Amino acid sequence: MERKMIIGIMGPGESAAESDLEVAFQLGKKLAEENFLVLTGGRSQGVMDAAMKGAKSAGGTTIGILPSADGNDQSKFVDIPIKTGMGSARNNINVLTSDLVVAVGMGAGTASEVTLAIKANKPVILMNASPETMPFLEQFAHPELVKANTIEEALQNINRFLSDS
Amino acid sequence: MERKMIIGIMGPGESAAESDLEVAFQLGKKLAEENFLVLTGGRSQGVMDAAMKGAKSAGGTTIGILPSADGNDQSKFVDIPIKTGMGSARNNINVLTSDLVVAVGMGAGTASEVTLAIKANKPVILMNASPETMPFLEQFAHPELVKANTIEEALQNINRFLSDS
Amino acid sequence: MERKMIIGIMGPGESAAESDLEVAFQLGKKLAEENFLVLTGGRSQGVMDAAMKGAKSAGGTTIGILPSADGNDQSKFVDIPIKTGMGSARNNINVLTSDLVVAVGMGAGTASEVTLAIKANKPVILMNASPETMPFLEQFAHPELVKANTIEEALQNINRFLSDS
Amino acid sequence: MERKMIIGIMGPGESAAESDLEVAFQLGKKLAEENFLVLTGGRSQGVMDAAMKGAKSAGGTTIGILPSADGNDQSKFVDIPIKTGMGSARNNINVLTSDLVVAVGMGAGTASEVTLAIKANKPVILMNASPETMPFLEQFAHPELVKANTIEEALQNINRFLSDS
Repeated sequence: MERKMIIGIMGPGESAAESDLEVAFQLGKKLAEENFLVLTGGRSQGVMDAAMKGAKSAGGTTIGILPSADGNDQSKFVDIPIKTGMGSARNNINVLTSDLVVAVGMGAGTASEVTLAIKANKPVILMNASPETMPFLEQFAHPELVKANTIEEALQNINRFLSDS
Repeated sequence: MERKMIIGIMGPGESAAESDLEVAFQLGKKLAEENFLVLTGGRSQGVMDAAMKGAKSAGGTTIGILPSADGNDQSKFVDIPIKTGMGSARNNINVLTSDLVVAVGMGAGTASEVTLAIKANKPVILMNASPETMPFLEQFAHPELVKANTIEEALQNINRFLSDS
Repeated sequence: MERKMIIGIMGPGESAAESDLEVAFQLGKKLAEENFLVLTGGRSQGVMDAAMKGAKSAGGTTIGILPSADGNDQSKFVDIPIKTGMGSARNNINVLTSDLVVAVGMGAGTASEVTLAIKANKPVILMNASPETMPFLEQFAHPELVKANTIEEALQNINRFLSDS
Repeated sequence: MERKMIIGIMGPGESAAESDLEVAFQLGKKLAEENFLVLTGGRSQGVMDAAMKGAKSAGGTTIGILPSADGNDQSKFVDIPIKTGMGSARNNINVLTSDLVVAVGMGAGTASEVTLAIKANKPVILMNASPETMPFLEQFAHPELVKANTIEEALQNINRFLSDS
């Protein structure tokens, strides 16, 4: 049995910018078309919601790692809702479960996921990142950290990183 | 979008009895046929492994909530491996994520899951339980706790509990 | 530096019996007099609250591993409040952090802690347990599981188990 | 009963710079003299170890929130070792349990703690931070985030933030 690869799409919730939502939707859609599983923090907000909506629009399967114990915060685009009841401690599960992490936009929670991903030695791709992000993260000298300006570029890097591993 | 219900099948790992493995396999198979998602603790041992093997034999989808951070303990019958890196603390995620818990056999870890399920107010069905189990659990006066002697009886109770909720 | 041993006192919260509260208070007091640290689930209810009240009455130090993220559930007898934000998943931290676990009374949450303690190979002492408890737990063949009928008997077993380890 | 305030000192482990260790030691010492409890990630490495060594040198009390389940990674300067068995997911407990977080130096794990602290709305003070750190964190517009260049300045900010809250 060949397991499908899991791509985690992380990004701001309530504070996501319009352009983050658009990129998240297109990325989720593209990844589903390419037969990846799409994982997010599972809530009905921002980048999480948009990425899973995109994946579902292309018939993909979505995993949502929820902070809540009861799923009251759950996006309607989650196929597999994991109810952790752990709040932000679930960010580490998001990262460990993903074969690769793409951050779309940046917020405090997203930054915790990106740095936990670096700590866990996972490939990380940044999209729509603020200009201050790359200089900050580069100090951690993580070999598999790149920026992508387009969905195509993100996908090329995903395929490159996952074939290396 | 109608979400599929998630049934957690819990039970001993290395110490599972032959009869536990047989029941777990048949239950996993039947649940997949009936279009449920099958969730377990995800390891390549005992009831977890057998239940997911059964589900896959009928073309079902399986979720494994792993204690490890890296999946080195993972059954080959897991479709969706959730890597928690939390050891036995992940038992609470097993329970919260399941719409209903079936315990097949009994061990210390399984007992923690059954009692966490009662605490979280989830329906619980016991199969292959030792004679000491039901008297112990009945003191917690949980309205949705039953024993099932056959796969058929388990399924009847699953349908009854989930239509009530 | 010689570290003080940590004794976890587990037991029902809101549903604790009067006799559980009395035993928990006396046990907490005695353990503080004997220079142990007293750990509980930290809430302002039942056995947790009573055990820490007892420990503080003898000038002891108390550790409360709270389910909440913000401490709103915290007993006023906690010296060291650990805010996990993890709900019942924190039960595993209670157990791992304790050098030995004493259960006073029995409830679903307490049962999860006792079985997680057995799983983690920690010594366990039962007080005020229902008659159904010992037969249930004995099936797990844990070498360091005993009942104690008095505070004195509990203390003898604590000293015996901790000098063995 | 007046509870002592808990200050979390976060920072790199194995990769800490000599100047980070020196600041962590002096800060831990000063906080203990001022009657604060000192919390760290508990390991026998880097900023964690140095901060607790400083606190102990002044007779303080130290709390270590360990990633391990068995304490094999534990600093000898921990008074209260909390064994989470959760790896980096324990970073969120570090932050929730601290009334205020001071980061000394910067690494990927430290960055996750600082951003989780911002997410949890805790006051954050940066010492020995790289030049890229403040511009990155300022985008999250957290009102209680400052840099401190000296132990004195850190302490002034601690007193200011904690009297506000």
